Amino acid sequence: MAYTAPLKDMLFNIRHLARIEQIAQLPGFEDAGLETAQAVLEESARFNQDVVAPLNEAGDRNPSSWKDGVVTTTPGFKQAFEQFAAGGWQGLQHPADFGGQGLPKTIGAACGEMLNSANLSFALCPLLTDGAIEALLTAGSDALKATYLEKLVSGAWTGTMNLTEPQAGSDLALVRTRAEPLPDGRYKLFGTKIFITYGEHDMADNIVHLVLARVQGAPEGVKGISLFVAPKFLVNADGSLGARNDVRCVSIEHKLGIKASPTAVLQFGDAGEGAIGELVGEENRGLEYMFIMMNAARYAVGVQGIAVAESAYQKAAAFAKDRVQSRPVDGSVAASAAIIHHPDVRRILMTMRALTEGCRAMASVAAAAYDAAHHHPDAQVRKDNQAFYEFMVPLVKGYSTEMSLEVTSLGVQVHGGMGFIEETGAAQFYRDARILPIYEGTTAIQANDLVGRKTARDGGKGAKAIAAQVEATEAELAASGSADAQAVARRLAAARAAFVQVVDFIAGASRSDPNAVYAGSVPYLLLAGNLVAGWQLARGLLAAEQNRAEDPAFMQAKIATARFYAEHILTRAPGQRDAIVDGAASVTALPLEAF
Amino acid sequence: MAYTAPLKDMLFNIRHLARIEQIAQLPGFEDAGLETAQAVLEESARFNQDVVAPLNEAGDRNPSSWKDGVVTTTPGFKQAFEQFAAGGWQGLQHPADFGGQGLPKTIGAACGEMLNSANLSFALCPLLTDGAIEALLTAGSDALKATYLEKLVSGAWTGTMNLTEPQAGSDLALVRTRAEPLPDGRYKLFGTKIFITYGEHDMADNIVHLVLARVQGAPEGVKGISLFVAPKFLVNADGSLGARNDVRCVSIEHKLGIKASPTAVLQFGDAGEGAIGELVGEENRGLEYMFIMMNAARYAVGVQGIAVAESAYQKAAAFAKDRVQSRPVDGSVAASAAIIHHPDVRRILMTMRALTEGCRAMASVAAAAYDAAHHHPDAQVRKDNQAFYEFMVPLVKGYSTEMSLEVTSLGVQVHGGMGFIEETGAAQFYRDARILPIYEGTTAIQANDLVGRKTARDGGKGAKAIAAQVEATEAELAASGSADAQAVARRLAAARAAFVQVVDFIAGASRSDPNAVYAGSVPYLLLAGNLVAGWQLARGLLAAEQNRAEDPAFMQAKIATARFYAEHILTRAPGQRDAIVDGAASVTALPLEAF
Repeated sequence: MAYTAPLKDMLFNIRHLARIEQIAQLPGFEDAGLETAQAVLEESARFNQDVVAPLNEAGDRNPSSWKDGVVTTTPGFKQAFEQFAAGGWQGLQHPADFGGQGLPKTIGAACGEMLNSANLSFALCPLLTDGAIEALLTAGSDALKATYLEKLVSGAWTGTMNLTEPQAGSDLALVRTRAEPLPDGRYKLFGTKIFITYGEHDMADNIVHLVLARVQGAPEGVKGISLFVAPKFLVNADGSLGARNDVRCVSIEHKLGIKASPTAVLQFGDAGEGAIGELVGEENRGLEYMFIMMNAARYAVGVQGIAVAESAYQKAAAFAKDRVQSRPVDGSVAASAAIIHHPDVRRILMTMRALTEGCRAMASVAAAAYDAAHHHPDAQVRKDNQAFYEFMVPLVKGYSTEMSLEVTSLGVQVHGGMGFIEETGAAQFYRDARILPIYEGTTAIQANDLVGRKTARDGGKGAKAIAAQVEATEAELAASGSADAQAVARRLAAARAAFVQVVDFIAGASRSDPNAVYAGSVPYLLLAGNLVAGWQLARGLLAAEQNRAEDPAFMQAKIATARFYAEHILTRAPGQRDAIVDGAASVTALPLEAF
Repeated sequence: MAYTAPLKDMLFNIRHLARIEQIAQLPGFEDAGLETAQAVLEESARFNQDVVAPLNEAGDRNPSSWKDGVVTTTPGFKQAFEQFAAGGWQGLQHPADFGGQGLPKTIGAACGEMLNSANLSFALCPLLTDGAIEALLTAGSDALKATYLEKLVSGAWTGTMNLTEPQAGSDLALVRTRAEPLPDGRYKLFGTKIFITYGEHDMADNIVHLVLARVQGAPEGVKGISLFVAPKFLVNADGSLGARNDVRCVSIEHKLGIKASPTAVLQFGDAGEGAIGELVGEENRGLEYMFIMMNAARYAVGVQGIAVAESAYQKAAAFAKDRVQSRPVDGSVAASAAIIHHPDVRRILMTMRALTEGCRAMASVAAAAYDAAHHHPDAQVRKDNQAFYEFMVPLVKGYSTEMSLEVTSLGVQVHGGMGFIEETGAAQFYRDARILPIYEGTTAIQANDLVGRKTARDGGKGAKAIAAQVEATEAELAASGSADAQAVARRLAAARAAFVQVVDFIAGASRSDPNAVYAGSVPYLLLAGNLVAGWQLARGLLAAEQNRAEDPAFMQAKIATARFYAEHILTRAPGQRDAIVDGAASVTALPLEAF
C-alpha cells in the first residue's frame, strides 16, 4: 500500500500548536514561515512517497547482507540515498556554514517523520549522521569540522555512534575500548563495539565513526570516557580519501525488524595496528558530548515511533474500508459490510489515530521549544524553552515509542488472520517498531532521566509549571463552551491532577525511598506523555473550533479525535497514579530468590 | 534456555482454587484426586521439558516447508509426535471408550499449558485434533465414531478444522465451499479453505479434515452450512487406509510466528473429482457443531496465551538475574549489579508474572466448572457451572491472549538490545503470541459473544452473579485482616464496581444503542478478564495465608503477586469503565470518509 504523508495534520500542528509564525520572528529563521514549511513538507512528501517508501517491503524481504567484512544493502537503497543527498535532505536542519539549509526543527521534525514512515530502516542512516554532525558542531575542533562537516551535511559521507559493547549497554561506565595516544596527537583505538547502526554499508564513500573509548590511565567509570572520530577511510589533508582505517565489520545481526538497516559488530584494531582516531573536544568529557548526539537521536527516535504508527494506521484504515465481513450490529447495512462499519474496528482505528496524532502534536511543540531555546534573543525565554524541551525529550522518546507498540499491534489485529501473514505488511511494522523503546536509551533509561534530572532535581517545579499550562488550557476549554471542549476539559483535569500527585510523590520520596520512586518511573513517564499528548490535542481542538470554516471536515476530525483521546486514553491516567503512588511497595516485595 | 514447568503454581490452583478433591467426588472422576493430578503433571512436565521444548527454536529457524503438495515439518517433530502419541497425551481428556484416559479438564488444561509453553507450534497439532474429537463425539454417527475416534484419540491420525475461506473469515455466513450429494449418502466437496493449521504434514498417517460446506440448495447464510469429515486418505471398511482423497495442499503461509506449524491452503476437488466427505450430524447444523469444536479450541487458545507468557517470563527472569548493568538506585550494591536489582526491571517481571499467574488461576477455575458441568449428578449444579464456564470462555480466550501480547513484549524489553536479536529467543515469543488474539475468533468476536450471548441476553444476571461471588471474596479478605488482604480487597471492590456499572450499561443499551455497547465490547472483555483474574489471585492469597506453613516462601510469593496484581493491574479497571460508559459516542463520531 502506498504511504500518503499526513501533510494537513502536520501543517495544522506547525501553524496552530508550534506557531511557526512566531518561530519565523527569530533571528536566522526569517524565511521559515508557514509558506516555507508548506513548500518543504510537500517536497519531502513527494520524495518519500515516490522514492523511499517503495523500498520498505523490499528491505524487509531482502535485508542488508554481510560477506567478508563488506555489507551490501538492499537493492535500490544506494540510489535512493544518492537522491536523498542530492535533494539536500541531510542538511535540512544543519547550519548554512557547512552547506545545510538551517531550517527550524519544527519543519525538520515533520520531514523526519515522513522519511521514517516511508522506511524506518533507510531513515536510520541519516538519523545517525545527524547525531554525528551535532557532536562535531558542539565539541569538534575547527580542523575536525573542516574535515568532516561539509561531507556529512551533504550526505557524501555518513556517521555512526559507537557506544555499546557486549558488557556495556545502558551502563556506559563499563566501556572498555581503549585509546592509545600517538606522538602526533592522534590515538589508536582497540576494542569491540556492537549494535552499530549502519556501522558498515555501501551507500556512501566514507563512514565517520564517533567512538567512546578510554585513554590509557583515565579514571574508572563514566568520568574516564573520551569521544573520538575514527573514519572508515582516513582523510588526507586535501580532503581526499586515504588509507583504510583498522576498523572492520566482523558481522551484522539477524534481527526481529528494521532488517534492511545493517547492525554491525565493529572491531577496532582488528589488524593489530589500531584504528586511527582523533579526539573530539577534551579528554574524559566524551559522555557529555555523546549526550548531545543522544539527545538529538532520542527526539528523532520518538519521531520514528510516530512515523511507524502513522504507516500502520494508514494500512489498517485502508484494509478496514476494503475488507467485507459480517453485518453491522446497528442494522445500518443489511448484508455483510466493510469492517470499518463495526464499532470495535472503529475503536481500534480511533485509538491508533488518536495516539499517533497526539504524539505528533507533542513532538511538534517540543521542536518549537528547541528552536526558541536556540534562537530566541531573550536569555530567559531561551532558558524556559530549553527546560521545556528537556522535559519533553524523554516523553517524545519514551511515550511515542511505547505507543507505537500498541498502534502497530492494533494494526495487525485489524487485519485479522491476514495480519499474521508477512506478505500483508502489517507484521513488518509490528516487528520494526519493537526496537524503538529499546535503542538510544530504553524507556526505563528515559524514565530515569525524567524522574531524576527533570523532576526530582528541582523538586517538581518544572513539572508543575507544565501542569499549570495544562490547567490554563482547561480554562480555555471551559470558556469555549462546546460539549466536546467540556468533555475534554474534564478528562484533562483528572489526568493533570493525577500527574501532579505523582510529581509530589516523586519530589517527596526520591531521596528517602528511591526504590519506591523508581518503581513507578516508567508508569510516570507514560502518564506524563499521555497528559502532554492529550493536552496538545486539546489545544488543537480549540484551534479547530476557531478555524472551523477553513476546512470544516478536517477541523471536525481534529475535534472528534481530541475528544476520543480524552475519553479513551487520558482516562488511563488516574489508574496509573494509583499504581505509582499506592503500589510502589508491591513492586519490590518479592525477594530476588523467588523469581 | 530450558523451560521448567511451574508445577507448584499449577498444583496450588488445582488444589485451592479448582478444588480437585471436589472434582474427585464426581462420577467418572473417582481416581482424579490431587495425587493423580500431581503424578500426571510431573510426567507431563518431564515429557514437555525434555522432548518438546528442545524443538522450539529449531522450529522457528527451520519451519515447515512445502514442495509439490507435500509438507515436511521441522526435523524432530515427527519423532516427538510419535512419543506424544505413545505417551497417551492426545487422549488425556477423552473418553476411555475410545482409548482415552478420561481425566478432568482441570488436569488436562495444566498439561496443555506445559505442551504449549514448550512449543506453541508443535502443540497446535494436538489442539486441533482435540477439536475434531469433540465434534465427532457430540455429533458424529456411531459409524463415524467407530472409524475415526480411536485413531484420533491415540494420536495415530490428526484432525483439522476447515472454516476459513478467502472471503469468509470471522463471517462464516460467506462460506462457499459446496457439497454435492452422492447416491451412496456421501458427498463430493469442492472449494478452497485457507489458514488450515496442520492441514498437511508428515507427522501422522492420516489427516481427518472437518469441513464446513454448503449442500446444494441449502439456505443462504449460516443456516445453510453443514459439517463434513473428509480424510486425506479414505478409510476402508476394515479401518485400513484406502485411496488418496481429492484434497490437496496448494501452499503454506509465510507467517510472523508459529512458523513450525504449517498453515495450509487446501483445495477440495482440485483434481476435478471432488473430495469425498461424510456428513457429521444433520445437514445445515454445521455451525452449531463447529461451535463445539470452537469452544474447546477457544479455551485451549487462551491456555496458549498463558503458556507463551510463562515461557517469556522464565526467559526474562533468567536474563535479569544474569545480566549485569548499572548500579542500583538505592545504593544496595556498590558496583554494577544484575539488572533484577533495578526497580523497573522488577516492575516488568512482576507484571509478567502477575498477569500469567492471574490468567492461569482463571483458566483453572473455568476448567473445574467445565468438569462439574459435565459430571455433576445434580442438574442445577451442572447448569450453574455450565453458565459460569460459558461466561469464562471469552475471558480465558480474549484476556489471556491479549495479556500474552503485553507479557511477550515486556519480555523483549527486559533483554534490551539483545531482545531484538533473533538468536536470543525472546523475539520468537513476541512473534508467536501475535496470532493468539486472532485465530479461533478474534478478541472482538469473543467480546461480541460476551456482550451478546453472555451479558445482554439475560439482562446482566449471570454477570452480576459473578460480581456477587467477587464481593464474597472481598468480605473474606476483609475478615482475614492482613494488610495484604485489605489492599487487595480495596482494589477488587473498585474493579468489581466498575464491572457492574459496565454490565448495567450493556444491559440497558444493547437494544436501544447497539453501536455504543459494541464500541466498548473489547474494553469490557478486558475489564471482566482483569477482574476475574484478580479475583482468583485474591482467592489464592486467602488460601496462601491459610496454608502458609506448608511452604512459607512459595505462599508468601503468591500473596505478594496477588497484591501486585491488585495494585498495578486491577487499577486499570475504573479507567476502562470511564471509557466504555462515558466514551461510547466518540468511538463512532468520526465519519467513515474521514479515515
